[in-house]
Amino acid sequence: MKFIESEKKFKEYAAKIKKTDGYREPIAFGIARVDRGQLHNEKILQATFPVVNWKENYASAAAFIGALMDSEVDVDFGGSEFVCDVKKKFVKNAVNIFNPYLKEAFGGNHRNVQVIKNLYRIAQDEGLENNFRIIFLFEDAECKSIESVYLKLYALSLGKAPLRSLNLNGIFGLLENVAWCVNVPIEIEWLRANEIEMKLDGSYPFISAVDKFPRFLQHVIPEENVRIMDASKVRMGAYLAKGTALMPGASYINFNAGTTGAVMVEGRISSSVVVGDGSDVGGGASILGVLSGTNGNPVSIGKNTLLGANSVTGVPLGDGCIVDAGVAVLEGTKVSVSKEQLKLILEINPNFKFKKQESGGGYIFKAIELSGLNGLHFRRDSQTGVMTLSRSNRKVVLNADLH
Amino acid sequence: MKFIESEKKFKEYAAKIKKTDGYREPIAFGIARVDRGQLHNEKILQATFPVVNWKENYASAAAFIGALMDSEVDVDFGGSEFVCDVKKKFVKNAVNIFNPYLKEAFGGNHRNVQVIKNLYRIAQDEGLENNFRIIFLFEDAECKSIESVYLKLYALSLGKAPLRSLNLNGIFGLLENVAWCVNVPIEIEWLRANEIEMKLDGSYPFISAVDKFPRFLQHVIPEENVRIMDASKVRMGAYLAKGTALMPGASYINFNAGTTGAVMVEGRISSSVVVGDGSDVGGGASILGVLSGTNGNPVSIGKNTLLGANSVTGVPLGDGCIVDAGVAVLEGTKVSVSKEQLKLILEINPNFKFKKQESGGGYIFKAIELSGLNGLHFRRDSQTGVMTLSRSNRKVVLNADLH
Amino acid sequence: MKFIESEKKFKEYAAKIKKTDGYREPIAFGIARVDRGQLHNEKILQATFPVVNWKENYASAAAFIGALMDSEVDVDFGGSEFVCDVKKKFVKNAVNIFNPYLKEAFGGNHRNVQVIKNLYRIAQDEGLENNFRIIFLFEDAECKSIESVYLKLYALSLGKAPLRSLNLNGIFGLLENVAWCVNVPIEIEWLRANEIEMKLDGSYPFISAVDKFPRFLQHVIPEENVRIMDASKVRMGAYLAKGTALMPGASYINFNAGTTGAVMVEGRISSSVVVGDGSDVGGGASILGVLSGTNGNPVSIGKNTLLGANSVTGVPLGDGCIVDAGVAVLEGTKVSVSKEQLKLILEINPNFKFKKQESGGGYIFKAIELSGLNGLHFRRDSQTGVMTLSRSNRKVVLNADLH
Repeated sequence: MKFIESEKKFKEYAAKIKKTDGYREPIAFGIARVDRGQLHNEKILQATFPVVNWKENYASAAAFIGALMDSEVDVDFGGSEFVCDVKKKFVKNAVNIFNPYLKEAFGGNHRNVQVIKNLYRIAQDEGLENNFRIIFLFEDAECKSIESVYLKLYALSLGKAPLRSLNLNGIFGLLENVAWCVNVPIEIEWLRANEIEMKLDGSYPFISAVDKFPRFLQHVIPEENVRIMDASKVRMGAYLAKGTALMPGASYINFNAGTTGAVMVEGRISSSVVVGDGSDVGGGASILGVLSGTNGNPVSIGKNTLLGANSVTGVPLGDGCIVDAGVAVLEGTKVSVSKEQLKLILEINPNFKFKKQESGGGYIFKAIELSGLNGLHFRRDSQTGVMTLSRSNRKVVLNADLH
Repeated sequence: MKFIESEKKFKEYAAKIKKTDGYREPIAFGIARVDRGQLHNEKILQATFPVVNWKENYASAAAFIGALMDSEVDVDFGGSEFVCDVKKKFVKNAVNIFNPYLKEAFGGNHRNVQVIKNLYRIAQDEGLENNFRIIFLFEDAECKSIESVYLKLYALSLGKAPLRSLNLNGIFGLLENVAWCVNVPIEIEWLRANEIEMKLDGSYPFISAVDKFPRFLQHVIPEENVRIMDASKVRMGAYLAKGTALMPGASYINFNAGTTGAVMVEGRISSSVVVGDGSDVGGGASILGVLSGTNGNPVSIGKNTLLGANSVTGVPLGDGCIVDAGVAVLEGTKVSVSKEQLKLILEINPNFKFKKQESGGGYIFKAIELSGLNGLHFRRDSQTGVMTLSRSNRKVVLNADLH
Repeated sequence: MKFIESEKKFKEYAAKIKKTDGYREPIAFGIARVDRGQLHNEKILQATFPVVNWKENYASAAAFIGALMDSEVDVDFGGSEFVCDVKKKFVKNAVNIFNPYLKEAFGGNHRNVQVIKNLYRIAQDEGLENNFRIIFLFEDAECKSIESVYLKLYALSLGKAPLRSLNLNGIFGLLENVAWCVNVPIEIEWLRANEIEMKLDGSYPFISAVDKFPRFLQHVIPEENVRIMDASKVRMGAYLAKGTALMPGASYINFNAGTTGAVMVEGRISSSVVVGDGSDVGGGASILGVLSGTNGNPVSIGKNTLLGANSVTGVPLGDGCIVDAGVAVLEGTKVSVSKEQLKLILEINPNFKFKKQESGGGYIFKAIELSGLNGLHFRRDSQTGVMTLSRSNRKVVLNADLH
């Protein structure tokens, strides 16, 4: 591999690679350190990405692909993804290709080059062994490798891909259920094979969880002013926007779920649920996910909405809504609204169409019919037991474009 | 101690020991590594069993007892349990007795012999010190030692003894409340005595819990496809059958409680509660235990039953039941059922006898009167506040033998 | 600094220091080991106090101040607090001043002197570096330093200052949001700067939480028979009185909140909430705090009160009350009470004044009007949906002085 001398030459090199027959621009790529099975060394249990490229850095992708091809790796552009080992020759090639950037690659600059610099150091010192893998994702198809599962979970957790935007079908089948010994995944079978010896020696490991997924904080440095008071409560693949705070009581954020602004989370945000800026998921509040009771409709919660303590929400809500403490609003829950309150609700939901018949001076809706409306207040009348709907007193910021 | 040369001789030896005057077959036995008090060395804080024998391996029990007797230990068969230190001489004897099995003792084979082989190694290397204890349980009486408490908790957690089948009276009195520094129990008094020095040196330990019980995952390797997303949420003495998954939100499984099949656990399974295959304990759902509101009746939940998010269940339920999200079904909760629905419920509960009077076209039951019935659906009518009972739409697998 | 030879001389010395011009008696003082920013060394991230003096040990305070003044530190008595580095010369002075107590300073005796002895040892060995700080609090004003924030949180958690008695304004602004790597706080910015290298080397740290506050168990040795089954669930600044047990399900105790006696905690005790002896906070029960829905009125729960599973309480309650499982009692919740039940309630609440009109054979109150009353039972009638109030069957211990 020849040594590239200038940024100009680097760009020429990348352009040349891109013209290779069959070349496809990857939508994502990255190099991961992998943890392999203790008994089944061929199995990859975890992939840790220092840098994730998602619809960006196409020249670096070309450089990596060039470095692979020049180390006799046959890069297959035909599938939805390509993964292979990171070998010493590839690293050496990549160092030569990225040469013009080596000196300025530190801090926030040229992070892919920083990866290569570190790999070069490791290759000199303890050797790369089979600890590193490189992956290119050419399309968002069903994952075929652990590396692509992790790459997508990173994309979600880093906010590079929006929640619910990726194809995650089949990931449960790919991920191994392992014992998480702090940050390190251990095969259950290996534990079983070594139980007697470790227990008698007093060296049985501290296992913090047994799961297919790692925790968010094992891989992701949170955004500014995000607080996660218990690492066990956020699964890798969740996204917590700036200012989101998660308390340790009954809270939980599953993968492919999270927030899009500063949210106070004291309840459960199930897989597929997204909660908007300024909203408050009260202590023990449950928001149901597509895996847990919403008939496949993912629930979005708007901005500035309050889900009271121990409430349950199974339908999408707009901005400025309130579900009272202890109240369950499921798809089929019937709610009564007076003419006056309905008028107030229509004022801030001018596009809401309905064909309800009046009944005793008011109307009755199923909660699912109210999906996504703003300014709703769900409560149970403490003197009649009736679930009522009224206009909430929370601020609703109307989108001027809609009026 | 003479060296035993063949499996035949081993069997003869075991048979001979069993004929010792006063010999009793132990219902359980095992060798544990123990953690002792840092200040009070005579106190045992934790017992870790690499292998638990429960109503099995009687010949190995006889061999262990023989090895003890030949090392001048006076085994007392008179009490409900016998515990003593594991000494070098005992280990040497045991190695000689188990000689015919030494070579094949690895993997899943001859696990008691593996224990002895490891102890022999440890005795040669660092010495046994007073780190090991052997216990024989002759009957399931009230525990008299920490070792027997742990042996019973293991039996439950390993599925060797059914939940609720063992005498656990008095175990809270035997177990010391300790600081769990990862896997190691530390006496609170020792912490206090060393606080100043450790804090100034920056060596104050990481304490994950202060409790009498350790966590399940400190001692037990879970069954196939069991997921425990937060180790703090399952206490030693719980049992999680194959396929059970515990999410980290508001879930918890106490000792002497758990599942008998694949269950999704997002709520609380209190001590004495057992949940059946295919059931779903929704986010924040509480199932009350004998220590928390059921008047001493332990609650069993059948198969394929759904406890909705933030529901509360204080009575036993059969198969295919539903408790709606946010609904509390306690012993005294009155529920209304129409004639039509009652007829549907009777179809799948042919043996249900009741003496209720008709009232306004339907019937009213206290929830406790419906204990253990199949196919019940508990909901609160959102337009009247009335707690109603109807036939659920969950699958109920009827036991053909009952019809 | 001259060597003090006797206890008498020590007292004379302390008295002399107290007469220094401008001297003020500190309400609290202590020496802390501090953790500093990895990137911003001037930032203090955590202060660990081996000993906290709170309205006590004034002679020791004088001795410390004398040792500072004699090491050329200009102690400023003018502000609400004074903090400075602990230097070798100060330690040497303090050893000389405390000389009469050095020999007997161990165990529970002369704990401030034990601190000085340990610092002297550390100064000889690895050196004090800039790891130690001393703070004097002259009044309970708004905190000006991390050290005073920690000193106040310690005072609360050690039970030296009653919950809700201290000025904690502005502490969120002072505390840095950090990654807690077990007991050590790490700057997020440092993690980001070292992410690539650590991830590739396999040395990325185990992060248990990202928060401004540490956990209670990182700093405080619990009172007798306190059980905390999951360290993540109690924030520094909480107080757990003797006999309090916290289960791991949906429980949580925030800072400046806790118990004043033996309480079973399976639910959430929000900031500013205090729960009395013998009470039971059921699984998933929420008690609202001033930051979460009580209009600024802090909630106190009396003795022997039961908050049922998944209940929500937003008003203060007296002794012997019951909130049924799943019931939400908020400030505006209307409850119906019959004449007979109201009479029973008045028997144990003789000072309760009200001006309610009879309505249909009974009365209706807003829950806030019943604040702090004893013996209330809140339930929802399962056949009408009406929230009712009656006299509870829990024991109420009346204060004889009030009758």
